[in-house]
Order: sequence, then structure tokens, then C-alpha cells
Amino acid sequence: MRIDVLTLFPDMCEGVFGTSILGKAREKGIASLNTVNFRDFSGNKHNSVDDTPYGGGGGMVLKPDPIFAAVEHVLAQSSNSGEEGNAAEDTAAMKPRIILMCPQGRTYNQQIAEELAQEQHLIFICGHYEGYDERIREHLVTDELSIGDYVLTGGELPALTVIDSVVRLQPGALGNETSAIADSFSTGLLEYPHYTRPAEFRGWKVPDMLLSGHHANIEVWRREQALQRTLERRPDLLETAELTVKDKQTLKRLQEQASLQKN
Amino acid sequence: MRIDVLTLFPDMCEGVFGTSILGKAREKGIASLNTVNFRDFSGNKHNSVDDTPYGGGGGMVLKPDPIFAAVEHVLAQSSNSGEEGNAAEDTAAMKPRIILMCPQGRTYNQQIAEELAQEQHLIFICGHYEGYDERIREHLVTDELSIGDYVLTGGELPALTVIDSVVRLQPGALGNETSAIADSFSTGLLEYPHYTRPAEFRGWKVPDMLLSGHHANIEVWRREQALQRTLERRPDLLETAELTVKDKQTLKRLQEQASLQKN
Repeated sequence: MRIDVLTLFPDMCEGVFGTSILGKAREKGIASLNTVNFRDFSGNKHNSVDDTPYGGGGGMVLKPDPIFAAVEHVLAQSSNSGEEGNAAEDTAAMKPRIILMCPQGRTYNQQIAEELAQEQHLIFICGHYEGYDERIREHLVTDELSIGDYVLTGGELPALTVIDSVVRLQPGALGNETSAIADSFSTGLLEYPHYTRPAEFRGWKVPDMLLSGHHANIEVWRREQALQRTLERRPDLLETAELTVKDKQTLKRLQEQASLQKN
Repeated sequence: MRIDVLTLFPDMCEGVFGTSILGKAREKGIASLNTVNFRDFSGNKHNSVDDTPYGGGGGMVLKPDPIFAAVEHVLAQSSNSGEEGNAAEDTAAMKPRIILMCPQGRTYNQQIAEELAQEQHLIFICGHYEGYDERIREHLVTDELSIGDYVLTGGELPALTVIDSVVRLQPGALGNETSAIADSFSTGLLEYPHYTRPAEFRGWKVPDMLLSGHHANIEVWRREQALQRTLERRPDLLETAELTVKDKQTLKRLQEQASLQKN
């Protein structure tokens, strides 16, 4: 998989690309992670990439020219290097996704992560402070994504967030030690509580159940804890989670207990 | 404002802390941004901070000891340095928020950003690969936050995202050039389209309205565009946005037009 990030702050991305799962994926050749400073494509001697908005108002707007030119540079590079696969492969699969990180975008979630993880080439466009000229949105990008409903200074942290979530889904990206825990959104429920040594810390003990050695009971306890936590904190997730008949019975009991406690 | 990030990957954070708005806020003394490697608080000669989960199963779990010790170190440091304010001030305001970044947390949004921006001291705990021992959650942290419904490798990118959104709200953090644009979630509506030079790019023209020079009409056009974009992409935001009587009339018209086009 090839990933290019168009940004005015390549150093901000490179620091993250060199670390942890992304660093290892890069080393192992699982993901080729590149940054492109689109100021290099300004096409003017002042290296300016933004200008004031037509119609007035504050702030600056990213001009279309440098973004189109930088994307086209990346596309030419990747088709020359043949990274998009050989001609016999499906051409649809070879077409890169060109992703604009912006608050107006589709709200990113694990389903979109799994979809993007199937692609061969992702190009991210990261604005910073500025708005985007609408023609970038209309005539260049294939996707607009937002990581959540909050205002950020630039698209870099959102792009890095998306990249982390996509690259960790590539085969071989996670070592054995890193695979199992904290996958709340891939199971559809929030995780059950975890405990490790010491069995007692400052007087707070690990639940007896987990020390019992009775694995079948532990599984039942954990499933119930996951259901309870999801019910308390994110009941919206229960609508799409895959629930067994037994899960539904457990949920019914938990809801009845909760309503008894209220009264 | 003081911010401490407890992490096993301080370099990943430092790269971002040195750049853009965060770098400037640090230089100007608006925000003191620190990283603490909690491996330094392992309390054992192997420097281990995690262990296998009680009750079996895959993955590793962060032990309570290093996290409690690292947080207590930061608290001692900040009370010695008097950064929490003088004794005459409200002690409630002086109490740091201790924030666990995790998928089980409250979904972060602009309202929480504005709330955190009022604080004097934020401490972020970032796990990486591992789950957290439940006693950290129960007995140490004041807040659990999630930036969205996707699986990430660690808490660092989420913490940096929250920090960016909070620091940019501090007085003086944004220069004049950076303030006005892309604040979708602070107005309650998605932004209207922006355009800048050239007036024609590859045959795609800037809307005539924006070149008209008629500022009152431009304001009306922009408001309608913002309403239309929000209606099309994020109708959920309209439920909480502040709308005038005129906005509601415009929305009604846009909805009628859309339903005519469908039929």
C-alpha cells in the first residue's frame, strides 16, 4: 500500500511515520509512507499557496493550482513506478483515493477504515489554518473525511489518525503482542475491564472471578461486563452490534437491574 | 495552561508540540507542553510497564503502578512550581483533569474542547497497544475521552488532537491570519464554499455572486450555502445549530426543492 500526504508541515508527519506500528510497517515494506510539501508546487516565485477569499471575509483560502499540481505529480510518480499494480489487474482497484481532510467530510469510523485498507494507494490533502478552494473539492478529491466534531488547526493530525487506523489493518502490520486488546469498535461492543499484576494495588483488588482459573465462567463474566459497559456508555452501539440470543437475555436483565436501582 | 502527556513515545508528541500553533503557543508561554515517559516510573529493573491479563486472553495490560507513580510525579512537580495558581484562588479550579484516551470514553466534541480550555492543568494518559488496568480508570482518572469510533494503535494521536483543539482556544494562540476560516463546529453549521484566485481555473469559474462586490447579497448567498451543505451532509447538526427565523424559511425552501428534485 502506498500513502502520500500533501502538507505544508512534512516534519509533523515524518515524526509519526517513523514511530511504532507505522515505523515498523514502513521498515517491513507493508506501507510506503510519503510526504509531499505542496508549497513546492506553488508555481510562483513567492511560494504562496493561499490567497484571500473572493467575496471578502477573514482567513485565507488554499489555491487550486498547487494542490492539483502536487496530486498530479504524485499520480505520475506512482504510475511510472508501477506501484499501482500491473496492467492485467482491475483498473478500478488501481485508481487512488484522493482524500480531503475537512470538517465537512463524512464522519470517519471503523467501517471506512476497513474499506480504505483494501486500497492500493491513498493520497491525503491536509490544509492548515486555511479553507480549501471549492474547485479542489468538486473536481479533484474522491473522498472528504472528518475524524470528529471538533475544530483543529490542520488536516495533519486527522490524516495521521486515519493512516494509523488503516495501516494497522494491513496483513503483517501488527505483531502477535499487539493484536488482541482495545479493539472496541471491531467487535461492536466496548471492551470488558482488564486487570494485571499486582492482584492487590493500594488495597484495590482484582475481581475474584479473574483469579478463579475457571475459563468458561470468565468468558461469561467478560461478555456481561462488555455488554454492561456498552449499555451504560454507548447504548447507540448496541443497535449495530452482533448479539446472540444469550446476549439479548443478559441485556434485558441488566436493563431491569438498572431500572430497579433508579427507583 | 499546563499540559502533560504520559506516553511511551515522547518523540511522537514532541514533533507535533514543536510545530505550527502548538509550537507558537509554547514559545509565547501560552501553553507549557510536556511529555513524561512513564517507563521511567516502572519501579522494576526490567523497566516493564505492562503484563499479561488476569483471566487469560491475548494482548498486554498496562500495570497500575507506573501510571499512578508518573501522575503523582507530575502533580508534585506542578504544585511545587506553583503553576496551579496561588492559594487564594479557587481550589476547585486548581485541580488538574486527568484524562485517559480510550475507545470506551465519552466521544470528544467542540463543547468538551471549550470546557477543557478553561482548565489550568491537563494530564493525558496514552496507552499504546495495551489495555489499561481497570484500577487506573476507577481510582486515578477524572475523564475518559475517545476522539471517534475507530481503532488506533495508541492514545498519542488522540491526545495530540485534543491538545490542538484546546490550545487553539487559548487567548493569543491564533494569529489574525488564522482565526476566521474552517470553524464549522463553532458556528453550528458546516462552512459555505470558499473560492480564491484564479477566477477561472481549468475552465471552472468562481460563482458570479462572489465577484459582484455586493456584500449584503454575498452574506445571504453564503448563509444559504452553509444551510444547504449542512442539510445535505450533516442534517443532525441542524437540531442544535442556532437558526434565525429567516434560516428556518430558507431551510424549508431548500427541503422543498430537494424533494421536488427527487420526484
